[in-house]
Amino acid sequence: MESTLKCIGVLTSGGDAPGMNAAVRSVVRTAIYNGIRVIGIRRGYNGLINGDIFEMNLRSVSDIIHCGGTVLYTARCDEFKTDAGLTKARNTCLEAGIDGVVVIGGDGSFRGARDLTKYGIPCIALPGTIDNDIACSEYTIGYDTAVNTAMQMIDKLRDTTQSHDRCTVVEVMGRHAGHIALKTAVACGASGVIVPEKEFVLDKLIEKMKRSQRTGKQHFIVIVAEGHGKVDELAREIERLTHIETRATVLGHVQRGGSPTVRDRVVASEMGHYAVELLLKGSSNRVVAMQGGKIVDFDIDEALAMTKTLDMELYKISSQISI
Amino acid sequence: MESTLKCIGVLTSGGDAPGMNAAVRSVVRTAIYNGIRVIGIRRGYNGLINGDIFEMNLRSVSDIIHCGGTVLYTARCDEFKTDAGLTKARNTCLEAGIDGVVVIGGDGSFRGARDLTKYGIPCIALPGTIDNDIACSEYTIGYDTAVNTAMQMIDKLRDTTQSHDRCTVVEVMGRHAGHIALKTAVACGASGVIVPEKEFVLDKLIEKMKRSQRTGKQHFIVIVAEGHGKVDELAREIERLTHIETRATVLGHVQRGGSPTVRDRVVASEMGHYAVELLLKGSSNRVVAMQGGKIVDFDIDEALAMTKTLDMELYKISSQISI
Amino acid sequence: MESTLKCIGVLTSGGDAPGMNAAVRSVVRTAIYNGIRVIGIRRGYNGLINGDIFEMNLRSVSDIIHCGGTVLYTARCDEFKTDAGLTKARNTCLEAGIDGVVVIGGDGSFRGARDLTKYGIPCIALPGTIDNDIACSEYTIGYDTAVNTAMQMIDKLRDTTQSHDRCTVVEVMGRHAGHIALKTAVACGASGVIVPEKEFVLDKLIEKMKRSQRTGKQHFIVIVAEGHGKVDELAREIERLTHIETRATVLGHVQRGGSPTVRDRVVASEMGHYAVELLLKGSSNRVVAMQGGKIVDFDIDEALAMTKTLDMELYKISSQISI
Amino acid sequence: MESTLKCIGVLTSGGDAPGMNAAVRSVVRTAIYNGIRVIGIRRGYNGLINGDIFEMNLRSVSDIIHCGGTVLYTARCDEFKTDAGLTKARNTCLEAGIDGVVVIGGDGSFRGARDLTKYGIPCIALPGTIDNDIACSEYTIGYDTAVNTAMQMIDKLRDTTQSHDRCTVVEVMGRHAGHIALKTAVACGASGVIVPEKEFVLDKLIEKMKRSQRTGKQHFIVIVAEGHGKVDELAREIERLTHIETRATVLGHVQRGGSPTVRDRVVASEMGHYAVELLLKGSSNRVVAMQGGKIVDFDIDEALAMTKTLDMELYKISSQISI
Repeated sequence: MESTLKCIGVLTSGGDAPGMNAAVRSVVRTAIYNGIRVIGIRRGYNGLINGDIFEMNLRSVSDIIHCGGTVLYTARCDEFKTDAGLTKARNTCLEAGIDGVVVIGGDGSFRGARDLTKYGIPCIALPGTIDNDIACSEYTIGYDTAVNTAMQMIDKLRDTTQSHDRCTVVEVMGRHAGHIALKTAVACGASGVIVPEKEFVLDKLIEKMKRSQRTGKQHFIVIVAEGHGKVDELAREIERLTHIETRATVLGHVQRGGSPTVRDRVVASEMGHYAVELLLKGSSNRVVAMQGGKIVDFDIDEALAMTKTLDMELYKISSQISI
Repeated sequence: MESTLKCIGVLTSGGDAPGMNAAVRSVVRTAIYNGIRVIGIRRGYNGLINGDIFEMNLRSVSDIIHCGGTVLYTARCDEFKTDAGLTKARNTCLEAGIDGVVVIGGDGSFRGARDLTKYGIPCIALPGTIDNDIACSEYTIGYDTAVNTAMQMIDKLRDTTQSHDRCTVVEVMGRHAGHIALKTAVACGASGVIVPEKEFVLDKLIEKMKRSQRTGKQHFIVIVAEGHGKVDELAREIERLTHIETRATVLGHVQRGGSPTVRDRVVASEMGHYAVELLLKGSSNRVVAMQGGKIVDFDIDEALAMTKTLDMELYKISSQISI
Repeated sequence: MESTLKCIGVLTSGGDAPGMNAAVRSVVRTAIYNGIRVIGIRRGYNGLINGDIFEMNLRSVSDIIHCGGTVLYTARCDEFKTDAGLTKARNTCLEAGIDGVVVIGGDGSFRGARDLTKYGIPCIALPGTIDNDIACSEYTIGYDTAVNTAMQMIDKLRDTTQSHDRCTVVEVMGRHAGHIALKTAVACGASGVIVPEKEFVLDKLIEKMKRSQRTGKQHFIVIVAEGHGKVDELAREIERLTHIETRATVLGHVQRGGSPTVRDRVVASEMGHYAVELLLKGSSNRVVAMQGGKIVDFDIDEALAMTKTLDMELYKISSQISI
Repeated sequence: MESTLKCIGVLTSGGDAPGMNAAVRSVVRTAIYNGIRVIGIRRGYNGLINGDIFEMNLRSVSDIIHCGGTVLYTARCDEFKTDAGLTKARNTCLEAGIDGVVVIGGDGSFRGARDLTKYGIPCIALPGTIDNDIACSEYTIGYDTAVNTAMQMIDKLRDTTQSHDRCTVVEVMGRHAGHIALKTAVACGASGVIVPEKEFVLDKLIEKMKRSQRTGKQHFIVIVAEGHGKVDELAREIERLTHIETRATVLGHVQRGGSPTVRDRVVASEMGHYAVELLLKGSSNRVVAMQGGKIVDFDIDEALAMTKTLDMELYKISSQISI
């Protein structure tokens, strides 16, 4: 592959996600393998604005593939939405000789990548967010770890729920999307799941629980996506209507951390590799994505215009097999 | 060992705790090994009142040693505090030929065991509660699993706390006792720990955090025992006083479940074995306990009169090495 | 959906795999949801031959979705390759009123399903094997759990490998296929991976290790698929040629067990549901498979004639980013 | 506390063990808390001989408490058994101003600490080894993590053992001591356990397995301490005598790694703190140990002369409740 590319920057932005380190490692190693220098940028776009950058080598990313979080740190950055911020960032790139940037983050980070591209620095974005709420990609780095973490916590809740013949209402992450909720509901055999994408009818859940009770079921789990919230209230309502003792639990930020799963490490490695190859080919303003299990790429603007839907077939299966 | 004992009952009572199944298994197998029949009693003292009991054999407790929760189910039982309830329970025992009962639970369950003993059925109690708040025993079944579960969750919180240069305030279980909080604080290297047994001075914590910041520390964890609560408020105060972004998380009931650790399985097995040997020797109204790493026993009334203190030496160490 | 189907059987066959229980649960519940009776068949095709079968209801599959292994037990069955065996199996089905069977297992189990279909009992097969060596499907139930288990073990090996500046050679499962080896190699950042699908050149590995050493790398992991074997010999050779202390470890059957991951539970649930829908539609002699992330189905004979290839793009990425 | 101590060194030696990092962290922080400088020594006694040492500060031990292995690296060191080696080590200490050393390791490391004390550098040793084979202490750093790791692996083996009605023979670590074997045997409900401390009679095991089979038990686990070895041979013998399909698995070095448990982190923190306090008091040639659950200390020579016995009461319980 011929290319005029000499040096790239890499940063993580927005909420952290397990697998970001695997992506950073893959970007760094693929670049160096291809004779390209790599600059690490700290705390997302802030590092570009403040010049908080450092030269990376092969060993800078040793022994991080199994670590949650991000060794580059991450943050949101409002200044990057301004001309002043973008100008500073461009200048940092020019001074450091950075002629391409790989950005790992969510929707907001993609907008930053698009803007920086317009300021003359070619950017490639990778989908890194536990919520799996990126429309152009069926998979986002961190999602598999987050759902497994949530599932393992709910498996523990199941023990105590069962011992006490209770119902447990569990809030999982997902402010605007029910992907985590639906997957964990299927994986944990939950009796009900409440997601932003689908109207929730309490009466139907209650009726279903009573029907299950008549077949001998004595403990219940209900999963609620963060966006719906109000789990304490829901727990009280369920208890009032079914006379089954009901407790609410919010899994919270634990779901953001932890050592990434195989899938997150492998997909992150593939996407990081792919991103550098895109830069080597002279591409810019692209998002790396997964479609049909394959790594592909989209124009960032097109990607941002897409809308994501929940897997309604899985929703149907979930309701049929949790009876 | 000579004994007139022919048949014992076994029940779990109060909040469930990982390791209860190992204790039940040990009671059942030790009894049968000694030629004693065993009756399983469901849902704590309720099962004795309602006659919800069943004959157990060696295979009744196969493949349960690694399972959280309790296969005998558990519940609180207010009726057992009344003469009517105790009389029913005694009659169930007499009809079923139960001439001794092993009760696994916390303080409240011990009172039930003492009362039933007074009604003529010799009882032995085992300390089973995740809180480790039994005065006569330095260890309670479920505690080791609960602190390890809490620690693993906080290890995950550490990842995201570190990536974002944040402070995370974590509420762990322990309504009246700070044992879980203190152990997890030491294990997770928390900057601060708030326990019911020790006055908390916010200013000192803030000062310590600022001192650590000056040496380069950028992320912080503070552990709070459930009894103190108000973690959201505390998080806001810390953020206001330090200007470090601070989030609160409540670990909740997840801490009650999960496959028990080696320690919980082994100690539960030892205590269950010891309990049956006490009954074989003709003892009654005793609590099995751990002292100096050894299994011993106390009169239940004496045990209930003891008071438990927090390990203040560990509290001191915690504060000196989290700087 | 209209159908003459009244009763189906379900069995697990061959080596067990985590997620088989989720598949069984989904088959049972989907069938009952559609008004179909379900007969559980124990120990693979042996249960059909010996009449070791039992009626299942909604509660027969409660609280098994999170359990490794298979509640139906599994075994190989040579008698099923004979006319006598198949005739007995058909008769069992006819007597019990089973007019369709869902079989969960690997290649050998598919052949049994095909043969039983020829004897007049419509069969649908699900790919259940940790090796991911089913040609028609990019995914097999159990694979994700197995690679995550292997990865977690290798993460632990990494700790001691690093503390001692060693090289560790790790044998993972996969007698004829390198899928587990390649995925875990990428996920664990292994310096080398030996798979049946690709010639292994020791000199190249040694040279690569020496090159990495010169950049400061001091500990190494090499993954070997079971089919290659001889890890002790390889370890000695590596030590001799690099003067790096080298140890060999065989992960073994631990990789077969454990609570299934989200992916295994969800895909198993989807495939089990799909299998029953195929039977309801009157299909037979079909394998359920995953292609491009979607659930599809193939004729069993066609499926058996396909050949599976290793992901050579991932192999290339693996070698470029482990430097 | 008054003291002339100004600077201490810290090293890890022999086989690594989870919790060593917690011990190092506690030593460093306790020293600095008391106004003492700390020098880190790399790769055990080799670092003292070669001058591979570095100044440590509070942040040198940040974010290591949860990590397996040892950030100081470890190795055995034959040169330290010679006058030349000890002289070099002493000179390194004198030049660097090290007037006390904390050594974390096993028996061999204690001998080194005793010898260095004789050469004029006061040493305190901490018991750090997964085998729990230090006579003076009922607990060694790393043991709890190792047994929990072994148990979790055997729990996975149980799944596949059960699905196939098999017997699995498992070799766990412990070359000269059966502590790991016995604890995991109790924790996993193994039918048999073979330890160096107790003669093993195959016939008794076979008879017991047959007796259990008659009560309905169909799968079996047998634990073997590394020192006994020959698990393949034993598996063949068991299969021949019982006609139960039997497989052997060697857990291997996986048991050495992984994030330490609460107990290992807490005890390591306590012992590290205690070691520095001993040096501050002017003590030398002492081993820190646990007795009756309390942290105490012994003269190294006395400690080395003690002999450790296996918990034969636990061995008896194990055999009575695995029926």
